Amino acid sequence: MPLPGEFALIARHFRPLAEDVPGALALADDAALLDAPPGRTLVLAADAMVAGVHFLPDDPPDTIGRKLLRVNLSDLAAMGAEPLGYLMTTALPQDMTPEWLDEFARGLKEDQRAYGCGLLGGDTVSTPGPLTLSLTVVGTVAPGRALTRAGAREGDAVWVSGTIGDGALGLLALTDRLPGVAQAHRDALADRYRLPRPRLALGRRLFGVATSCLDVSDGLVQDLGHLCRAAGLSADIDADAVPLSEAARASAASDPALLARCLTGGDDYELVFTASETTVGTLERLSAETNVPLARIGRMTSAGETEVRALRDGAALALGETGWSHVR
Amino acid sequence: MPLPGEFALIARHFRPLAEDVPGALALADDAALLDAPPGRTLVLAADAMVAGVHFLPDDPPDTIGRKLLRVNLSDLAAMGAEPLGYLMTTALPQDMTPEWLDEFARGLKEDQRAYGCGLLGGDTVSTPGPLTLSLTVVGTVAPGRALTRAGAREGDAVWVSGTIGDGALGLLALTDRLPGVAQAHRDALADRYRLPRPRLALGRRLFGVATSCLDVSDGLVQDLGHLCRAAGLSADIDADAVPLSEAARASAASDPALLARCLTGGDDYELVFTASETTVGTLERLSAETNVPLARIGRMTSAGETEVRALRDGAALALGETGWSHVR
Repeated sequence: MPLPGEFALIARHFRPLAEDVPGALALADDAALLDAPPGRTLVLAADAMVAGVHFLPDDPPDTIGRKLLRVNLSDLAAMGAEPLGYLMTTALPQDMTPEWLDEFARGLKEDQRAYGCGLLGGDTVSTPGPLTLSLTVVGTVAPGRALTRAGAREGDAVWVSGTIGDGALGLLALTDRLPGVAQAHRDALADRYRLPRPRLALGRRLFGVATSCLDVSDGLVQDLGHLCRAAGLSADIDADAVPLSEAARASAASDPALLARCLTGGDDYELVFTASETTVGTLERLSAETNVPLARIGRMTSAGETEVRALRDGAALALGETGWSHVR
Repeated sequence: MPLPGEFALIARHFRPLAEDVPGALALADDAALLDAPPGRTLVLAADAMVAGVHFLPDDPPDTIGRKLLRVNLSDLAAMGAEPLGYLMTTALPQDMTPEWLDEFARGLKEDQRAYGCGLLGGDTVSTPGPLTLSLTVVGTVAPGRALTRAGAREGDAVWVSGTIGDGALGLLALTDRLPGVAQAHRDALADRYRLPRPRLALGRRLFGVATSCLDVSDGLVQDLGHLCRAAGLSADIDADAVPLSEAARASAASDPALLARCLTGGDDYELVFTASETTVGTLERLSAETNVPLARIGRMTSAGETEVRALRDGAALALGETGWSHVR
C-alpha cells in the first residue's frame, strides 16, 4: 500500500499518539503548548537513530519506536528526572509503508502508557536515505536535585544497575556473530538490544546518594571514563564484579573475548554512578524498593591518569576499543 | 581533513554554541536543565531538514544552520511566542568535513545572537545517507495568549506579512530554472530561499488582533487552507493583492505561470492570519512599529467548501498543485 500524503499520514499514524495530550493541539498547529509543573526545573534531551547504525533495518518496527523513546528516557533517568512528553521528527525512506508505521506507532503508544508521557509535536519528511529518527524528550526534576556526571570523590564506590553487556551481545546475536550460544540466550540478548529498560524509578531516588551518574549508552568503560574526567579521578573496576546476565555469562563461557565486549560495548542503558561507601545500606534498600539489581563494581581513585582500569586478580585487562563513538 | 571522533567534534563545533547557556551543562551531560520563566507557557516545535529535499547540498553551510533554526523560530512566531533555546540532532554523512561544520556552527552562532536563544543539547551521529538535521525549539508565551490556526470568523480579512513566493522562486533560481530573470533578482530570491525571516516581533504583537495565524511554510494556498478548515470557512484571495517582491514581479513578468508558483510554493516563512475588518488601523500601526509590511489579500467567507480561491478580475485562477507536502 502506498504511503498517504503528509497530512493524512500524520492523522493516521501520529495523531493518536497525541490524543491525550492537550497542549499537542492534535498535532495540527505549528507548535505545542506545555504548562510545566510549577516549581520544577525542565530537563531536555535529544537523541537521533539511523537505520543500519543504531538499529537493524529489519528490527520489528514497534521495537524501533520504543527504543527511540527509551534511549531518551534513559537520559532523563540518569539525571533523576521524570518524563512529561516528547517531540519526534521522522525522515521516511521511499519504501516506507503504512503498515510499518502502524507498528512503529503502536510500540510508541504502549510505551507512552508505561512511562507516562505523550507526543507533543514534531515533523515528518521524506528522505532518499535510510530511515532517520530524532526524538526530544521533556522531563522535570525538583530544582537543584538533578544528578550530573560531575561530583565523584576519591574513595567513592562505583555502582551499576541491572546487567552489563547484553545490548552489545544482542547486536552480535542478531547479526549471527554468536554461533556457539543457545537460541534462548541469543533471543534474550536480542531483546535487550532492541528494548532498553530506562531506570527512571531508580534515577529519581538517587539524589543525595549518588555523587555522579550517567547512563551507559556507549559502553561501561567509556561512560565511566566520563565520570572520571569530570571528577579528575580514575576508576578501578573488578571485571568479575560487573553483573552479567545468564545469557551474557553463557556467551563469555563460549568465547572469553566477549567479556571485554560486555565492558566496552554500547546499548546497555543501565545507570553507572558513584556513591560514598557509607551509602551501601541505603542502596541495598533502594534496590529492593525499585526492584532494580545494583552491583558495586569498583572504586574511584586518584592514582594515575583519569582512566578506567578493569582488573582481574589484580592485573589490568586489555580492553581494546573502549567504547562506541557515534561518529566514525 | 578527516572528521574527529564524536566527543572532539562536539567540543570543537557545538560546545561554543552552548557556552552562554548555563543549563546546557557544556553539552557534557545526558540532558539540559532549563528553568522556564515563571508564569509562562512553554511553546515547543520541531522540524527536520534533509539535504537535497529541504536545502541544496551545496548551499553555504552557514545558511543551512541558520535556515534550520529559523524555520523553527517561524513556528514560534506563528504562535506569538518568544524563543528560549533549542536542541539539535545532526546525522552526518561520510564526506562531512570539520571545515563544513565550522561554517554551519558559525551561522548558528550568528543567529543565536540575533534571535536570543542558545543551544541546550542534542546528539551527533553518522549516517550512510544524506545530511539530516532535526531541531527542537523551546519558547514561551503568556498563558492563554498563544495564537493558533483555529478561530477565523466569516468576514474576517486575510493578511500576510512581507512578500510571498520568493522562497519557491529562489529554489528555481538556484536550480537554473529562472533563465529569463536578471542575476540580481535571482540572487535576491536565492537569499530568501536560504534565509527565512521568522516574524517573531510581529507574531508576539498579534494576540488580540489576529483571530487565527499560521506561518507559510508549505505554500500560501495550502497554509491558508489550514486556517479555513480549522474554522469551517473558505477564503477568497485577490491574486493581485498578494504582495510580491520586485524580483518576484520581474519573474512573473518573464513567465506568467510563475504567479501560481508564488501562491502555491513553499518556504515563505511569512505569517498568514485572519483579523476582523475593524483592526485595519491597529495592523497598520503594528506594521509601522515592527517594520514588517502587511498586506490585506482577501476575506473569509462561508460560501462553498472549505477551500481557498484565488481570484483575478472576479474569476478563479487555476493553481495546479496547491502546496508542498513533505512526504511524496
